[in-house]
Amino acid sequence: MTVRHASSDCARLLEELRSTTPLVQCVTNAVVTNFTANVLLAVGAAPAMVDIPSEARQFASVASGILINLGTPQRDQQTAMTEAVVAANAAGTPWVLDPVAVGFLSVRTELAGQLAGRSPRIIRGNASEILALAGAGSGGRGVDSTDDPLDALHAARSLSRSTSSAVAISGAHDLMVGPEGDAVVVANGHALLTKVTGGGCALGAVMAAFAALTDDAVLAATAATGVYTLAAEQAAARAHGPGSFAIEFLDRLAAVTPDDVASGVNLRAVSVSDSAR
Amino acid sequence: MTVRHASSDCARLLEELRSTTPLVQCVTNAVVTNFTANVLLAVGAAPAMVDIPSEARQFASVASGILINLGTPQRDQQTAMTEAVVAANAAGTPWVLDPVAVGFLSVRTELAGQLAGRSPRIIRGNASEILALAGAGSGGRGVDSTDDPLDALHAARSLSRSTSSAVAISGAHDLMVGPEGDAVVVANGHALLTKVTGGGCALGAVMAAFAALTDDAVLAATAATGVYTLAAEQAAARAHGPGSFAIEFLDRLAAVTPDDVASGVNLRAVSVSDSAR
Amino acid sequence: MTVRHASSDCARLLEELRSTTPLVQCVTNAVVTNFTANVLLAVGAAPAMVDIPSEARQFASVASGILINLGTPQRDQQTAMTEAVVAANAAGTPWVLDPVAVGFLSVRTELAGQLAGRSPRIIRGNASEILALAGAGSGGRGVDSTDDPLDALHAARSLSRSTSSAVAISGAHDLMVGPEGDAVVVANGHALLTKVTGGGCALGAVMAAFAALTDDAVLAATAATGVYTLAAEQAAARAHGPGSFAIEFLDRLAAVTPDDVASGVNLRAVSVSDSAR
Repeated sequence: MTVRHASSDCARLLEELRSTTPLVQCVTNAVVTNFTANVLLAVGAAPAMVDIPSEARQFASVASGILINLGTPQRDQQTAMTEAVVAANAAGTPWVLDPVAVGFLSVRTELAGQLAGRSPRIIRGNASEILALAGAGSGGRGVDSTDDPLDALHAARSLSRSTSSAVAISGAHDLMVGPEGDAVVVANGHALLTKVTGGGCALGAVMAAFAALTDDAVLAATAATGVYTLAAEQAAARAHGPGSFAIEFLDRLAAVTPDDVASGVNLRAVSVSDSAR
Repeated sequence: MTVRHASSDCARLLEELRSTTPLVQCVTNAVVTNFTANVLLAVGAAPAMVDIPSEARQFASVASGILINLGTPQRDQQTAMTEAVVAANAAGTPWVLDPVAVGFLSVRTELAGQLAGRSPRIIRGNASEILALAGAGSGGRGVDSTDDPLDALHAARSLSRSTSSAVAISGAHDLMVGPEGDAVVVANGHALLTKVTGGGCALGAVMAAFAALTDDAVLAATAATGVYTLAAEQAAARAHGPGSFAIEFLDRLAAVTPDDVASGVNLRAVSVSDSAR
Repeated sequence: MTVRHASSDCARLLEELRSTTPLVQCVTNAVVTNFTANVLLAVGAAPAMVDIPSEARQFASVASGILINLGTPQRDQQTAMTEAVVAANAAGTPWVLDPVAVGFLSVRTELAGQLAGRSPRIIRGNASEILALAGAGSGGRGVDSTDDPLDALHAARSLSRSTSSAVAISGAHDLMVGPEGDAVVVANGHALLTKVTGGGCALGAVMAAFAALTDDAVLAATAATGVYTLAAEQAAARAHGPGSFAIEFLDRLAAVTPDDVASGVNLRAVSVSDSAR
């Protein structure tokens, strides 16, 4: 199977993002809300962390894209999540579901199951989370993934078909799967991204920004991942540890150019041997 | 109209802040609480993010200054805000109201209207927020302002008269207005400040610190803004993007001297053409 | 009295931490949750900020160590704290209590008293907080300590005996006291650590990570403090202010070696004159 999209498609979408500044509502966890907002600002989107009941619904009706992240789902925030999803669907606004640490923890696992049935445009997680949400694993320990993205390929395809959502799995390389069976690997990134809390969570917000630009959910997830992981590579080359990496990463997200993306994002097909897993 | 205060007044207050370390209670939004505390520490104040019911009231009775920021007004935090304001007024402690994103979002808009009637020393926002709170606009989209500070001059004057509060509007340049009609523009700052989440919110906390030092609310807002935006200029000169800017900004807030402020803060009067807007 | 442990014991535990990656659950305050998670990642542990009712209990049954920090104790979080402590004790999992700003603020002070009676492995605070928890002082103003660690030596010994917990007091130098009367001073550190919000709070999380590696609570607290304050010294030598210090600190926490710790951590006994305080 060949890859449907090229890095030039990612480059074009980055250019469009910066010229249109999509307004991304984040109903996300307390640990990463600051970093997520700064990532969105750096890449060229406009964050709005509106996450209380009533206001979450109101804002979802005007947002360009929405992130629903289950990392610290307090009671009122759970209500806000459902409100935002209903309003987003009524308005035709794309939203991304990040089922953080589902599998073992009961509150978020039940909530993730409900939300996955409400037509997210993209479901984003690590391999353990996607396996758990697809009913094929017990989840990892917290946000740690104990599984390789390609080991979750079958589960991702099953989840994508049943939800009609694109499914994005982060790992050493990142895997995107669409409901029609198309799949692509983004072979960029750097391990330091796993040493900054919110490295995965903020990617979900960037996916919501790109999903505002195209109806092609796999392309949106791929472009977001490509830009994000390429900036991480550039940042790692300048960093001296996880602290300076996070700072360089924000600088590079703001500085990375469409030309960088066209030449540096490395997309490849899922191979036959991958599919056999 | 001439400017009542000089940059030397700002310098003197910075010196006083550093020698007295005002204790600033922040009842603020979840996105920026960490950055706000670090900004207060850097400039020389002592932050205390006490924001639950009962404790917010208790702490407000001993704080030097208080920030009430409506960015993520969870239910218990709303209670804490009102408690803190009542205790602050009973103790004669100055407090700053930041009506984040009011206009469109119902919970905070109603709350902001109530709180504005309880004698904040300073009301701080962007032009869209001040227009909305003054009843003259519909608000921007989230914390983005779609309006220029000087376009909100008339609304700010009206709001200042009706609340007896100083009104501070941030933008490319910042505008301060007092209830007696005095107005001053702080012509410092840098666009990178809008690329860091909490750039405006943390300024509200710094205003609360300066308000602890003087009964002149316009001077407190002006000095806070002058120190803050001058540090931003210094930081921008050393930064390579929004990530490194935020770090340099904290370093410069700690390093900026009264002499820097006296020579670098640029105050100017609101001109006749401004007033005609 | 001689010091029971040497810096080489601290070095050995750091090596063990990095090879075992203890899973540290944090039920902590909203201001520092991001910094705390990044500190744990940097030093080599795995953070999990699971703090809502039901899930806090579930996670505590699988965590390696747990931090309970009272900085912003919202109602549901209070429930989660008690749940986590009960589950930790049932599983024999060590947990650290950080009674932030107790003494004057009623909600946390009552809660801290209850939790201190439930066998924390380590109680960590500044001198004012330890004095207040031991019933010997009224607390400082917020997280500021107005007292020197050694001034709280008597209170720490009393609190340690009554709770059977190790008691760790941070300050210019840090003091550890055990229920059998042993005491050690870690004579490392840098004042810039007090200019970054969460400098003390994140140390509590690192103590929970080290407590997962040894039943000797004084050693766990000492090793955590030694590694942490040595990294702070290294960071301060490269920093230009509080912003860059926090970034360098994360870099150095990831880079500091067991050899650095063995040669650089400075443990000393509490002297007779100290004990007379």
